[in-house]
Amino acid sequence: MTVPEEVLHARAYLLRVAEPPAPAVAHLAELLGPVEAAARIRGGADLGPHVGAEVAARRDDDRAAEDLAAAAALGGRLLVPEDEAWPAAAMAGFAAQPGHAEWAVPLALWVRGPAAVDELVGPGRRSVAVVGSRAASGYGKWIARDWAASFADAGLPVVSGAALGIDGEAHRGALAANGTTVAVLACGIERAYPAAHARLLEAIAERGLVVSEYPVGAVPARHRFLVRNRLIAALATGTLLVESGVRSGASRTAWAARELGRPVLVVPGPVTSALSVGNHTLARDGYSTLVGSVGHALADLGPIDPEADRPAAEPPRRRSPVDGLSGAAVRVHGALRGHAPSSTAALVRESGVTPRTVPAALDELLAAGLVVRDGDRGWSRSV
Amino acid sequence: MTVPEEVLHARAYLLRVAEPPAPAVAHLAELLGPVEAAARIRGGADLGPHVGAEVAARRDDDRAAEDLAAAAALGGRLLVPEDEAWPAAAMAGFAAQPGHAEWAVPLALWVRGPAAVDELVGPGRRSVAVVGSRAASGYGKWIARDWAASFADAGLPVVSGAALGIDGEAHRGALAANGTTVAVLACGIERAYPAAHARLLEAIAERGLVVSEYPVGAVPARHRFLVRNRLIAALATGTLLVESGVRSGASRTAWAARELGRPVLVVPGPVTSALSVGNHTLARDGYSTLVGSVGHALADLGPIDPEADRPAAEPPRRRSPVDGLSGAAVRVHGALRGHAPSSTAALVRESGVTPRTVPAALDELLAAGLVVRDGDRGWSRSV
Repeated sequence: MTVPEEVLHARAYLLRVAEPPAPAVAHLAELLGPVEAAARIRGGADLGPHVGAEVAARRDDDRAAEDLAAAAALGGRLLVPEDEAWPAAAMAGFAAQPGHAEWAVPLALWVRGPAAVDELVGPGRRSVAVVGSRAASGYGKWIARDWAASFADAGLPVVSGAALGIDGEAHRGALAANGTTVAVLACGIERAYPAAHARLLEAIAERGLVVSEYPVGAVPARHRFLVRNRLIAALATGTLLVESGVRSGASRTAWAARELGRPVLVVPGPVTSALSVGNHTLARDGYSTLVGSVGHALADLGPIDPEADRPAAEPPRRRSPVDGLSGAAVRVHGALRGHAPSSTAALVRESGVTPRTVPAALDELLAAGLVVRDGDRGWSRSV
Repeated sequence: MTVPEEVLHARAYLLRVAEPPAPAVAHLAELLGPVEAAARIRGGADLGPHVGAEVAARRDDDRAAEDLAAAAALGGRLLVPEDEAWPAAAMAGFAAQPGHAEWAVPLALWVRGPAAVDELVGPGRRSVAVVGSRAASGYGKWIARDWAASFADAGLPVVSGAALGIDGEAHRGALAANGTTVAVLACGIERAYPAAHARLLEAIAERGLVVSEYPVGAVPARHRFLVRNRLIAALATGTLLVESGVRSGASRTAWAARELGRPVLVVPGPVTSALSVGNHTLARDGYSTLVGSVGHALADLGPIDPEADRPAAEPPRRRSPVDGLSGAAVRVHGALRGHAPSSTAALVRESGVTPRTVPAALDELLAAGLVVRDGDRGWSRSV
């Protein structure tokens, strides 16, 4: 099935005019179809404050034809949800949460390389995002490269962000084992960023896949890395953190994986290493799993055998106590402590959930038996 | 309240004639009182096969007076359950499981040193067992010593086994911080074992406490270390494993702590270190908690504030999903895997629970919602 040119043009236009994530534009495209959505935006129609805010700055910047041509010149293309090669299973977690800016489904993806992005996630498929600090230690780099090679040997594509440190080593390990590796960028698919990874990115584009929400020519910007991290998590069955400091980009990727209901695996390290502090904290959150070996990780990612994914024999997936809860409840649960009660104010602060929403989240957790009220002292985790 | 001499003599006799653990003799002493129990055993009465088996080898070996005199000569004494200084709260977990040989309450304890063994566990008290491999790495030794000093600074007595490696460093760290430290031995309280720790043991006896189930003169034997480990776990609020290999003595102590319902804390290390393999495996068992810092450990051990332990305001203790289940069910739960189903035969093998008992344990776990049957493929953990 060929995707009509007008759909490609419409989505190329939408991707450029609405800085990702663009949940309102994504929703509009879902409601009206991308062609009509693009036409209305281009025509200056009043589409309400949400869409208006997302397209205000660039609605007249219609460079769809140039963007498509530039990608084609690199051997790349625009992959759209209307394409049968669209990674629908990978994106399913996003589509279910249209109200959350952070979890907006991408309007389309620029891709470059021979690997198929729809073969990463879904029944019978296993892949792993291997992420971590740019300023990684020798220990972390060794694990990233060695384990990525082992994952590749086991048939799992390795997804990462092409950054210095852990990301780069993960891609290199997968390539060294002749595996598939996917780099999700925060800039155009032509860009050698970081410059030191120019050859690595060429190798990934030749043998794996380079993916981005940003058109050719787009420069990396700080917020784009954070936005990009949700796609790394989405394009893998589970996310493995090799090394992470406190509040690192990698821990954001872990958070995204968790919100998407995917396994989060953390590699331990010396407690004397600041580069493992983030991992050790995550390992205590009740959701992430500590993995001491590739074998642990493969077990936690589940079997690669397609038989095991049949609906008839439900895959023995690890179930988390927070499965099925709202995103807000999951975050509040993560902010609860096992031993000392937390005040509602502390939960607002720790969870990042708004004061208005925390009580409802607590009700949800109470109903699920996951929180106990300890008199006036506050709330603690019950399990 | 002074304990009558005849009680001391009776329990000294029982401790020597029944090699610990001696659940049948302990139960007899509970039923008849130690004086009558000792008299009947000494008199050769038929007390059934269980008591008979426990005392068959040494029932005529009545050296109570000599044992008491030898301890007194060292400044030590026999602490008995009839003494108000008996660590009743620490031993409560044992008393509740009289049928399990491994969990037999000690008939009495030989103690030497100024520290009070009843001030380790109970309302308003916090202490920590710091254990690990004898062949520890520099990393592990550093953590044992540094963290033990921090625990001592925070007011927590440090309990360990006086072995080479982690144990010795833990005692040293606590002593260096002028803290209380308790060494539980698998031999007589006078013995310098290991010889390299002669001075360390003297320091512990002078400033802390040396504890043993074995009379003066008793030699350490392999099985005594395993039996002793249950007392290390019992005499601390929680057990911290600094470094442990697979199937190490330290992981037995962790197991004992778990069976007693006490927190098990594990320190992560490099995945490249064989000395951390046991810890990383434990961290995946759903019961143990990974601790990346002394702060984590103190949080998991709970507040030291006596107010928090009042029955009126129930202490915010970490609850495990297996709380309240039988020992067999806890073991079978520990043997279950999250992802791949296990056959009943595999559960027997992994849990060490007898084939006859495993079905009942599975019924218990089913009733608690902790296990799911996956068709013909076996059993897996539901949470």
